[in-house]
Amino acid sequence: MGQGKRSDMIVHTDQPYNAEPPRRALSSKPLTPLDAFYSRNHGAIPSIDTRGWRLIVDGLVGNPLNLSLSQLRDRFTEQSLVATLQCAGNRRKEFLAFRDIPDEVPWGSTATSTAEWTGVRLSDVLEAADLLSEAGHIEFLGPDIAEHASPPQPFGSSIPVQKATAGEVLVAWAMNGEPLPSAHGGPVRIVVPGYIGARSVKWVHGIRALTAESRNYFQAVAYRLEPADADRSSVAATTDFALGAVALNSDILSPDDGDLLPSGPTTVTGYAFAGDGRGISRVEVSGSAGRCWHEAALDDELGPWAWRRWQITVDLPVGQCQILARAWDASGDTQPEFARDLWNPKGYGNNSWGRVNVTAA
Amino acid sequence: MGQGKRSDMIVHTDQPYNAEPPRRALSSKPLTPLDAFYSRNHGAIPSIDTRGWRLIVDGLVGNPLNLSLSQLRDRFTEQSLVATLQCAGNRRKEFLAFRDIPDEVPWGSTATSTAEWTGVRLSDVLEAADLLSEAGHIEFLGPDIAEHASPPQPFGSSIPVQKATAGEVLVAWAMNGEPLPSAHGGPVRIVVPGYIGARSVKWVHGIRALTAESRNYFQAVAYRLEPADADRSSVAATTDFALGAVALNSDILSPDDGDLLPSGPTTVTGYAFAGDGRGISRVEVSGSAGRCWHEAALDDELGPWAWRRWQITVDLPVGQCQILARAWDASGDTQPEFARDLWNPKGYGNNSWGRVNVTAA
Repeated sequence: MGQGKRSDMIVHTDQPYNAEPPRRALSSKPLTPLDAFYSRNHGAIPSIDTRGWRLIVDGLVGNPLNLSLSQLRDRFTEQSLVATLQCAGNRRKEFLAFRDIPDEVPWGSTATSTAEWTGVRLSDVLEAADLLSEAGHIEFLGPDIAEHASPPQPFGSSIPVQKATAGEVLVAWAMNGEPLPSAHGGPVRIVVPGYIGARSVKWVHGIRALTAESRNYFQAVAYRLEPADADRSSVAATTDFALGAVALNSDILSPDDGDLLPSGPTTVTGYAFAGDGRGISRVEVSGSAGRCWHEAALDDELGPWAWRRWQITVDLPVGQCQILARAWDASGDTQPEFARDLWNPKGYGNNSWGRVNVTAA
Repeated sequence: MGQGKRSDMIVHTDQPYNAEPPRRALSSKPLTPLDAFYSRNHGAIPSIDTRGWRLIVDGLVGNPLNLSLSQLRDRFTEQSLVATLQCAGNRRKEFLAFRDIPDEVPWGSTATSTAEWTGVRLSDVLEAADLLSEAGHIEFLGPDIAEHASPPQPFGSSIPVQKATAGEVLVAWAMNGEPLPSAHGGPVRIVVPGYIGARSVKWVHGIRALTAESRNYFQAVAYRLEPADADRSSVAATTDFALGAVALNSDILSPDDGDLLPSGPTTVTGYAFAGDGRGISRVEVSGSAGRCWHEAALDDELGPWAWRRWQITVDLPVGQCQILARAWDASGDTQPEFARDLWNPKGYGNNSWGRVNVTAA
């Protein structure tokens, strides 16, 4: 199911198709080409006839809607924005040094990508549906059946109504100016800027206003952050919470982990991202295990919902070197040093310092 | 100038008066009693005749205002909210283990306090003044002269217009239901919920709409986060940025650092706070240097701008023990482990894991 993908995609599973690009595919351009955009699926990619596609908007609304694609496009004002999607399991691989994480995709550093999305505002659609004041959460329903869910069920998620009506959430049919490919949710998907990718439901056919969070497996059971010892705790009461906004993160996109390079001046590039629009104030790079940090140059902003790319030239000595990166947000928050301090049984939310190991000759 | 203060306040300097309460004074109640609220001053506390006090609102406004206190109270709707103020230098003391920080107050863990504030919305005042669309920042002007500023000047600050018009910023004349004492900015101060305390200008007499950040020393020079090596860098270009929202933080309020306690079950209490309304999702406590974490019970929320208090009972073994605390926000961000990784020459923004050392007998 990896049609239209680069041949060097790192394919973790083929059925369902889960793949991330090599770092070099993300480092070259601010917007990720469609054939390099990471793919996270929980079921088979459905083939949907655009002419037959309908979007049902119901639940706690005064005026339920049933819209064809042309009705959706004609009735609401088209909007575009650049948004980075990031899988909640991005960088899970670094957790595997501590303990096995069964049944989860061992994502490396590139389960994240950025595109310009075009569609209509979810807030406009909800307004047309006369969203009732009792609504607390907006649920998105997809058609793709996740066989490993318990019980097996279509993929779904929900977001708080405050986020749903804030204006940045799109019902999108285009990606980087092209019709949305079925591999990325075409004909129509949800894009929830700043939230973990799982909330941006692909092939969406239902939007439902609820009082509380969706009870879909992927909202109520998966994609929740558990305490470190949740899987073997002797304490009866442990709490988890549904992941929404992406935590402050940064990582190195070039050079790649394991690269053999000439010694001397080397350009290091990467990205930084804080999902809830907090903004990136600084990115630092260290070749000395964090003893000294050097400030990277930030590329131009792509908007509040997109990664901030950065670059710096460092002088690589002959031998092995670990290059580290960390970002700071506008409040002065920065990333934790070690993934071990962020361990959780499902391996979500690794936002420890970015690191690659290289050898200079 | 410490009138109306607890006798056990930790006074760092008397002129200007800078003092923080002992941890036990913060641990007992959700709202900090007036006599225990920390005091951060850059000049002598002015004595202002309430009857003669005027508030001038000018700059990029279509309708400048000149208001007496009774006009301010009569013209706008009274609002109250609970907000935690936290000094940007809170927990600076932990940085002093690495290097001296001259000319800055060596704050311990309690340059933070919480009160219910009453006044009117800054957004209402700015609307009455017909704020112009060119305005990018709102400056607050105080009368207190800071002799150590360069050049000596009255204290001032600014906040972005988006924050100023968001509704939570108050022009306040009461604190915990009592008229605002002069020691805390009376008759009238600004309260910027979620921002470092320095932006909540005391004894405010001017509000000015500007295109850019205030050029006051305390916005343009002090209260900015510099890179770690800013004071001795060989690199010409280093950047700093003005501190606004408070970073995610948590700390232990009881027991106190250095306490001698009976071994066995011990109640540990503290607070967690993320300044920009991100919310606290979890607080954990460790007695094992972070190898195992135990989840604390969160007290009821006091609102989006207030600390979240927490408590947990831990079993203290005989001997010396370090108790650690860390908070998680709703995005899954948590605090860095070490203050050393957050070092900056002025010692701002220490939000490393909270820690106290105790001895159990």
